[in-house]
Formats: sequence, structure tokens, C-alpha cells
Amino acid sequence: MTSGTVQRDLLAVARREFVEHGYGGASIRSIAQKTGVSLSAMYYHYASKQELLAAMLNSGMDSFERRVVEEFEAKDPTPTGRLLGYVASLVRFRTLEQEQSQLVQTETRNLEPEFLSAYRERQRQSSEPLRQALADGVDSGEFRTPFPEDSYRSILGMCNAIAHWYEPAGDLTVEEIVHRYQELALRVVYHRDVAPPASEPSS
Amino acid sequence: MTSGTVQRDLLAVARREFVEHGYGGASIRSIAQKTGVSLSAMYYHYASKQELLAAMLNSGMDSFERRVVEEFEAKDPTPTGRLLGYVASLVRFRTLEQEQSQLVQTETRNLEPEFLSAYRERQRQSSEPLRQALADGVDSGEFRTPFPEDSYRSILGMCNAIAHWYEPAGDLTVEEIVHRYQELALRVVYHRDVAPPASEPSS
Repeated sequence: MTSGTVQRDLLAVARREFVEHGYGGASIRSIAQKTGVSLSAMYYHYASKQELLAAMLNSGMDSFERRVVEEFEAKDPTPTGRLLGYVASLVRFRTLEQEQSQLVQTETRNLEPEFLSAYRERQRQSSEPLRQALADGVDSGEFRTPFPEDSYRSILGMCNAIAHWYEPAGDLTVEEIVHRYQELALRVVYHRDVAPPASEPSS
Repeated sequence: MTSGTVQRDLLAVARREFVEHGYGGASIRSIAQKTGVSLSAMYYHYASKQELLAAMLNSGMDSFERRVVEEFEAKDPTPTGRLLGYVASLVRFRTLEQEQSQLVQTETRNLEPEFLSAYRERQRQSSEPLRQALADGVDSGEFRTPFPEDSYRSILGMCNAIAHWYEPAGDLTVEEIVHRYQELALRVVYHRDVAPPASEPSS
């Protein structure tokens, strides 16, 4: 095995262990054993369980960011195009990489301060394209939300939740879910084509 | 102290411990000590850390359900009224009981099967009023969402996320947040007063 392969295998096995036992319950010895490497080889790649956790969370983030970049290169550069592209990336990440995506949500709290601040900064940066699309869409008049920050958080909240209920064997394909959440997101930003022309909600 | 007071105090101290150290790291000995009761008194009330966790999660659920019942009694019984009431209850729970509300989200995974299935059933029941409001609103024509299940999940997802970003010292009052999320929820269900009369989104 090359060094890169070992690392990849260690991460894959660790992910499984973390999903099954949580960070606290996962054993670094068992991860090495199941990967088929010695404990010293394991420590050569990851000096601690914290390093393993940080590497795992960062690899999830890499994967999500690659999806966003691909969508943004492929889609039209208007705020609406970027909003739809971001939602598509996030829905695909939450469904196609469900396990990874759940870990990112549940295990971040186990990162120690040394790793946590860098990771939080990455998280912030990874949602920047959505924040920027929201701001630009409000400027251009495409989005009419009176509270862009809440629209932004709502879109993240509703897409993030998908990882908790999605069933790969369920009725909906990933692309159907993408389409639905794009439709919902257009409403959450009060897109001009779905916002009422003048009247206010009757509530 | 009466037995009820001891129980309440134990739960309050335990909540703090679980927030600070997580379930795995929380110590039942330290919880008893900080509450000022003997370990045997502690075990008299809660025979295990699992019982303590289950009691804590259930007390969070009690509190949320009380809020929903109050709102439903006070508000108009139309699907729209119930939707707005449910959102108000959930937003208030996520903000005014932020700590409790985060525990419910992060520590449920530590419940053992013995407690987990009953708790999952309670969770399901607690979201039943929202699901029912959605179904009734679609029937009555108040809500025009073509996918009520996704609207339902999106509303839960966006309201649940509030516990993660809410700052009691922030600019918005709880009631301002309630109002914003009610407005967003009306859009997520394609409420007839905010849905476009005929045309489809241009996306």
C-alpha cells in the first residue's frame, strides 16, 4: 500500500468506527487493527485520535467544497443561479455522503480548541458562497427577503436536516430532492418570481 | 428538600454537566456532589446515567409540548393558525431553552435501545401537530405546497437550527425571531396569500 492509500483506508475505517461508537467510544487500536496496519504505522499518519477526527472532518469539508466549486463553474453566475447551485451541492452532500455528513454535524463538538478554531473558520468559509449569493440577490432585486440572514440560516438548516431523514432506499431520487429543496429555497429568499407582487401575508 | 426538589435539582445539575462534558464525559458522582446529595440518594432517584439522560430528554420534551398546547389553545384553529402557533412554540423552545434544546439534539444518540424507542415515539408525537396542520392546510387549499412532507421537514430543520446560532445578547428579541420564522414558514408551505397566483418559478 502507498502512504496515501493507507491514509485513505485509515480514514474510511475510522469513519465507520466513529459512526458506530461515537468519538468517545472509538478505539484507535481497533481502527489500526481493522485497517490492517500496526499501531506505530497508525501513529505515523495520525499522531492522536484528535488528529484523526480533524482529518476526517476536513475531508468531509473538502468533498463538500469540491461540489460547490463544480456547481458554480457549471451554473449561471447570477445570484439565483448560485443559490440553486449551492442548494444542489448541499443536498447532494447530505444524501450521497450521508455518513460523512452526519459526522460533520455530530462530532465537531469533540474537537479540541487546537483544531476547533481552524475548523470553524473553514465551516464559515464553506457557507460564504451562499451568504454572498443572498447578498447579491437582494442587491439585484432577485430576492425580496426582508431578512437575508434568516433566509440564509433557514436554507442551511433545512438542507442540513436532510442527513437525518434521508433513506437511500426511499421513494425519492437524490435529484428529485435537489429539485424540491431548490424550489423551497426560492421561496425562503422571497424570489421575485414566486413572491407576491405587492400584498403582504395575511397572518 | 422534598423529593421533587431533589429530582429537579439533580436534573438541572446534570444538564449543566452534560452540556460541559457530553454524556460520555459526565460523571454521576460529580452530579451528586454538586447537587449536595449522597450517591445513594442520587441512585434512589436515578438508577443509572441512562435514566438521568432519559429523564432529562423527557423533561425537555414536556416543556416543548406544554408550549405547543398553550399556543394551540390560544390561537385560531385553522391550519394557518396552527402552523403559526407551532412555529412560535418551536422557536421559543429553541431560544428560551437553548441549552435544553441543544441537548435534545446532540445527546439523543447516547440513549440505549431500552429508552430510545419510547423517546423516538415521543419525538414523533411531538411533531404530529405540525404534520396535521400541514395536511389540513393542503386539504383546505390554504397551503399549496406540492410536497407537504418536505415543507414539514424544512420547517423543523430551519427552526431546530436556531439553537445553534441564537445569542441571548444578540440584536433580535425572541418574538422578532418568532415573527420572522412564521413568515418564512408561510412561504415554505406555499401559503395561498404569498404563493404566486398562477405562474411557476422561472428556475
